[in-house]
Amino acid sequence: MPIIDFWYEFASNYAFLAAMRIEAVAERAGVGVRWRPFMLGPIFAAQGLTTSPFNLFPIKGRHMIRDMERQCAAIGLAFVKPDPFPQNGLAAARIALIGHDAGWGPEFSRRVYRAEFVEGRTISDRDVLTAILDELGLDAGAVLAASETPDNKGRLKAQTETALGLGIFGAPSFITADGELFWGNDRLEQALHWARYGTLEGLLPRL
Amino acid sequence: MPIIDFWYEFASNYAFLAAMRIEAVAERAGVGVRWRPFMLGPIFAAQGLTTSPFNLFPIKGRHMIRDMERQCAAIGLAFVKPDPFPQNGLAAARIALIGHDAGWGPEFSRRVYRAEFVEGRTISDRDVLTAILDELGLDAGAVLAASETPDNKGRLKAQTETALGLGIFGAPSFITADGELFWGNDRLEQALHWARYGTLEGLLPRL
Repeated sequence: MPIIDFWYEFASNYAFLAAMRIEAVAERAGVGVRWRPFMLGPIFAAQGLTTSPFNLFPIKGRHMIRDMERQCAAIGLAFVKPDPFPQNGLAAARIALIGHDAGWGPEFSRRVYRAEFVEGRTISDRDVLTAILDELGLDAGAVLAASETPDNKGRLKAQTETALGLGIFGAPSFITADGELFWGNDRLEQALHWARYGTLEGLLPRL
Repeated sequence: MPIIDFWYEFASNYAFLAAMRIEAVAERAGVGVRWRPFMLGPIFAAQGLTTSPFNLFPIKGRHMIRDMERQCAAIGLAFVKPDPFPQNGLAAARIALIGHDAGWGPEFSRRVYRAEFVEGRTISDRDVLTAILDELGLDAGAVLAASETPDNKGRLKAQTETALGLGIFGAPSFITADGELFWGNDRLEQALHWARYGTLEGLLPRL
């Protein structure tokens, strides 16, 4: 089965939209998904950006909020703009790495996104993360401790450096086995089709 | 019949993709299209941008080129990155205004885009524009002269100010009668659905 890498950061609202639907869409496409959390901060810094482009260009940020409201309403989700935006997803990403080893990473990630963008909670808050781990029936204290070891912190850092090396500049990004990079929730279907067929023919209508 | 305003600038590659397909997609959706050329320069300047974001953030520009190559190959078009990018679309936009009054605006616009992004021609070149007007069976000299009157220049300027006032920050943009702004070729289907139904429900699958 072909595989795509799903590069995501908890601060990203469009990665939230992708995370909520990727498993179902990929299954229909016959493509497997490897979830790869990373940090956008160093990626933005490499482009000379000090924060999210949605903050640097407020007119774009206002459109993004309205775009999220429209789309979330249609798919059946409330949408709350995080305050502050973007949230700090570092602690959640460290936990997600452990979760992906153990098999509960996708469900954990969706719950973090839901807490952040549907419920308006602060995802850098240890209590919020503990509650999510509890809901999953995990030993929250043990998971948090494991997520904060130097080894695990180093893994996330290395994964972010890998993302930078792959030419990733935003989230979500999807990368196929042959190295094609697709950026944005709007490109999920194209990435899956490419993973399967190595072309977008048959997906986009010819002129 | 509901109507959307299609705000486009000849320099924009994603407006090119939208222009090539908008009439067919809108017809299927039962929505009319009002073509509204404008200039991105003053719009970018209002955001503190001195050129296209694809030049300011080269890593994003490289992804855009690959994205265009993939999509154009699938829809059956060659893609040539204009040199220089972005092209100066001022003269073409002034002509387009006249063409939209006379009914040949959409066809003229598609031919300008094709010259620019498929054939790699320089669309600020008077000979290129003359050849397109000739192909349409028009009196190229008379059209060019009419496009360069102070009145017509002022119309394009006023239309760009209108775009700025509507909160447009990039191209293509689609605006529905109830004032919803949708940005990007990827949002064309959403804009049309919204124009028809006032919601995205029924278009996006519920989670």
